[in-house]
Parts: sequence; structure tokens; C-alpha cells
Amino acid sequence: MESSVIYSRDVAPEVLGGGVTRRVLAWLPTQMMVEVRFETDAIGAAHSHPHTQCTYVREGRFVFTVAGRDYPVGAGDTLAFASGETHGCICREAGVLIDVFTPAREDFIK
Amino acid sequence: MESSVIYSRDVAPEVLGGGVTRRVLAWLPTQMMVEVRFETDAIGAAHSHPHTQCTYVREGRFVFTVAGRDYPVGAGDTLAFASGETHGCICREAGVLIDVFTPAREDFIK
Repeated sequence: MESSVIYSRDVAPEVLGGGVTRRVLAWLPTQMMVEVRFETDAIGAAHSHPHTQCTYVREGRFVFTVAGRDYPVGAGDTLAFASGETHGCICREAGVLIDVFTPAREDFIK
Repeated sequence: MESSVIYSRDVAPEVLGGGVTRRVLAWLPTQMMVEVRFETDAIGAAHSHPHTQCTYVREGRFVFTVAGRDYPVGAGDTLAFASGETHGCICREAGVLIDVFTPAREDFIK
């Protein structure tokens, strides 16, 4: 896949339910950038995947649970999840996460 | 490397000169998240690297040059650079980029 520029205005959100929406942003086979918006009290259920993941908190407040421990985070904080690591979050104040997966999440591509 | 949580307040910026600072945020060997702050008119000189890169414009306005073509971008816009792709930018309005490299930029680690 070639280099690309993805304008925010061109990407419609996918409604995931429970106050969560997702937009797949720029990506290559090796990595995929995804915006996930949470309403206050929305939950990202604990899950795991073989992809590694880095997450940037763009805005809002969240509590992440990683390996059974809770981490309150806010704007500018970041997390890295090793392959297979179980992770989840609850949104304490409406916000936006930028998740980046390696390799790309093929299951997110229509 | 294991999963990690990196709090923004704990990461000091590295001054790169020319109105640009860099902070290495959460990372794993497979991917590294890096915040780069630009003052207005600061330049990210055209360069290339074997790592693939996704970039999220957190705030500000930039003009990226990719493969000889200019792309004006702003908050929420994203770019993906293939391995070896020459890319650079000029900052038109002070802002912040979140760059994510695959694999990690070992040259950024002290």
C-alpha cells in the first residue's frame, strides 16, 4: 500500500454502540491509526489481540485496566499493550483515544 | 518489552532546534509513539527512513510534502508514509504531531 493523506472530514464514524464510535484513519499493512470516541461512562470491554497497540489519549479521562491493574489517564498520556495483553477501559469524562495497531487490524477494514 | 503506561507529565521534551521539540511516548519494539511540537514556521526537513510511519495532527496547521506533492492538513487529519517515502512539513500555525513508527525508532532511544 502506498503513502496516503486522510482528511478527518472524509471519514464517517462507525457506531459501535454503548456510546462508542470508531473511525479508521491513515493506515498501511504494518500499522493502522484508529480514532475511538467515548461518551462518559462508556466502556471498552476487556479484550486482547495478537496485534501490539499504542494508545494516545487525545482528550477526556479514562481508567484503563491492564493485567489486572487500574491506570487513570488523561489528555496526552499514552499506553502500550504487548501482543496478547488483556486491556480495557472505562471513560470517566467523554473523550477520544487514538489507537495504533501493528500490524493493521484487517477486521476493521470494510 | 512489556505493556506500559506513560504519563505525559513524566516525559521531558528534547529540544531539536528550529522551533521543534520531541517527546518519545509509549513504545514497544514493534511500534513507537512520538509527540513532536512545532512553533509557527518551524520545518520538518524532508527525509526518509525504512520504518513505516503514521502521523496524527493533534493541533495546529501544517503543509506536508509527500512524493513531491503538498498537502495542507489540520487537527484530526492523518498521514501514512510507506517505508522509504520522502516526507517533510512546514508548520503554518503552531501545533503538535503524533508520529507512530513501525518498528520503533531505536535512534530515538537514549
